[in-house]
Amino acid sequence: MIVLSDAAQREVDDALEVALSRLRKRAASLGESAAALGEATAAAAAGGKRLRPALVIAAFEAFGGDCAHAPGLWRVAAAFELLHAAFVVHDDLIDGDVERRGVPNVMGAFRQRARALGGDARDERTLGDAAAVLAGDLLLFEATRLIATAPVPAPARAGLFVLLDDALLVSAAGELADVEQAIGESLPPTASLLRTARDKTAFYSFQAPLSAGALLAGAAEAQRSAVEAAGSEIGIAFQLADDLIGTFGSRAQAGREPGADLRAAKRTPLISLAAETALWPRVASALALAPTGPIAVREAQRELAASGARERTVELIEDTQRSARTRAADAALPRDAVVLLAALAAAVEERIPR
Amino acid sequence: MIVLSDAAQREVDDALEVALSRLRKRAASLGESAAALGEATAAAAAGGKRLRPALVIAAFEAFGGDCAHAPGLWRVAAAFELLHAAFVVHDDLIDGDVERRGVPNVMGAFRQRARALGGDARDERTLGDAAAVLAGDLLLFEATRLIATAPVPAPARAGLFVLLDDALLVSAAGELADVEQAIGESLPPTASLLRTARDKTAFYSFQAPLSAGALLAGAAEAQRSAVEAAGSEIGIAFQLADDLIGTFGSRAQAGREPGADLRAAKRTPLISLAAETALWPRVASALALAPTGPIAVREAQRELAASGARERTVELIEDTQRSARTRAADAALPRDAVVLLAALAAAVEERIPR
Repeated sequence: MIVLSDAAQREVDDALEVALSRLRKRAASLGESAAALGEATAAAAAGGKRLRPALVIAAFEAFGGDCAHAPGLWRVAAAFELLHAAFVVHDDLIDGDVERRGVPNVMGAFRQRARALGGDARDERTLGDAAAVLAGDLLLFEATRLIATAPVPAPARAGLFVLLDDALLVSAAGELADVEQAIGESLPPTASLLRTARDKTAFYSFQAPLSAGALLAGAAEAQRSAVEAAGSEIGIAFQLADDLIGTFGSRAQAGREPGADLRAAKRTPLISLAAETALWPRVASALALAPTGPIAVREAQRELAASGARERTVELIEDTQRSARTRAADAALPRDAVVLLAALAAAVEERIPR
Repeated sequence: MIVLSDAAQREVDDALEVALSRLRKRAASLGESAAALGEATAAAAAGGKRLRPALVIAAFEAFGGDCAHAPGLWRVAAAFELLHAAFVVHDDLIDGDVERRGVPNVMGAFRQRARALGGDARDERTLGDAAAVLAGDLLLFEATRLIATAPVPAPARAGLFVLLDDALLVSAAGELADVEQAIGESLPPTASLLRTARDKTAFYSFQAPLSAGALLAGAAEAQRSAVEAAGSEIGIAFQLADDLIGTFGSRAQAGREPGADLRAAKRTPLISLAAETALWPRVASALALAPTGPIAVREAQRELAASGARERTVELIEDTQRSARTRAADAALPRDAVVLLAALAAAVEERIPR
């Protein structure tokens, strides 16, 4: 979504590599099983797209920050990637997922390890859970440590801790709501599902990194508020585009079986929007069959589209660009910040499967 | 084990109460399910004996620190209690425990909540796991945040982060080893089980809090090393005493069914010490039957004692006092620090069930 300069990308990659290789080495000094945990933990943080660090840096530059004179910037940027990795590892544990990007994740790797140690199915579960809990804890702490010890002025560090504090609590609230909204017979209202998307994803993935970059560049309070509000909306739009991809996207775009969200009967705003239409009974019947196979998936896709929910979701995403522009104008953001927010909103739009 | 002055105890309690009520209030502002998470998280940190904060403060005073002029001390002390609470919540998740001190813990409370929401057994597990993961994350972050933002000089904060960093990794290594050592047929050697006790418990519960207090009081590097080494030994002794209580202690002392460790077939150094004697075959047969009921438990207790393993464990604990005295003398610790370490070793000895 954002392309950093080669130099900036290298600085972020270096900061992450320093943190992760330090973790691996220290873990290795504590014995063989700790070494395996260190490797799995570092691997969990190594393979991402590094979107969140890019947002920190792009916002820093957009608010006039000079990357050549920002010794703490790279560590703060790297911290957001580690925070993301921590959340992913713990999210996978909660969801019971043993793979990510087609290879065993921390939990999967340690379930295999339990088998190799002669364990039974119960041992596999326990060791997989233990490793996932601990890897996430180590990543969460490392993210926090990088910011606590980054060479930035004390007021900036205090501001970053306010952001982090909110990011932890809001994301936890979103994760919990996400699990609770999957329970029981009744589909939650669209407003609740959108709020969950905001809390679980938009806050720590967009709002907080953009705000951190603006803060480090010395942006005024009102400007940071505007960036945070726009970041939140862009983040929700990002999640809605993700839902569209998981529902209508091709295998190539989704990186998994087409219609995976339908097969998993995921409760997304896309579904609740359909539930608010007169065509819901037809959609509901089609959705109920979707887990049975590809033909039923295609039927559910057709009914969802016919209900207007697909189009309505696209409109919600498209509204984001307009809203970001308004917020930018109201807060008199610098030109580069306006351009950045518009570019992000446009990049989210481009992800919509057509 | 340590009795603080009323004033010091009040300061610690206040620092914890401020942190936890702040967490509860902020969580409540994020909706009903977040409010429930905030309540459960705060409850998980509220009921402990506050041993670790007491160690921070006792060490601070023993090294000449003046509690009346230590604005950051109470937050640092409180942070160690929150760290402990985080580990307990995540440990319970790993062990699948749904109660602590006879009432539902975070996981137990949210399994009940899932039932109330109309969930099935799978929903109960998922929501319980989610809440336990998230509550532990919030507590871990809050512990870190308290130290990162405590009013202490920058070098002290840096030193505290080195300690925290080690505490996280060493405890994770110990927790993982603890799970792995329960897998498979063969009993690990005593040295490995003692090391796990050191890593999982002694480091963050004794070594790190004592060292943090000494650091805040301005103790010299060599003195801190001596305190850390003694703290580690006292912590291992504490765990060995715990094993004796879980194996031989009365219901009153253990706070649970007598011989609970035998019923759960726990692999403790006490067991591996027996395995190193000629009487092991008899002990092993008795241990194999112990989970069947109270008569078999008593038989296993008799055989363990007859093997000499019980006496050997008591000796290991009793050695601690001597060793602490030697370390204190070698590093020329101040008199109050010598007294503190001796008092801690003596308090651990007093826990030995006779």
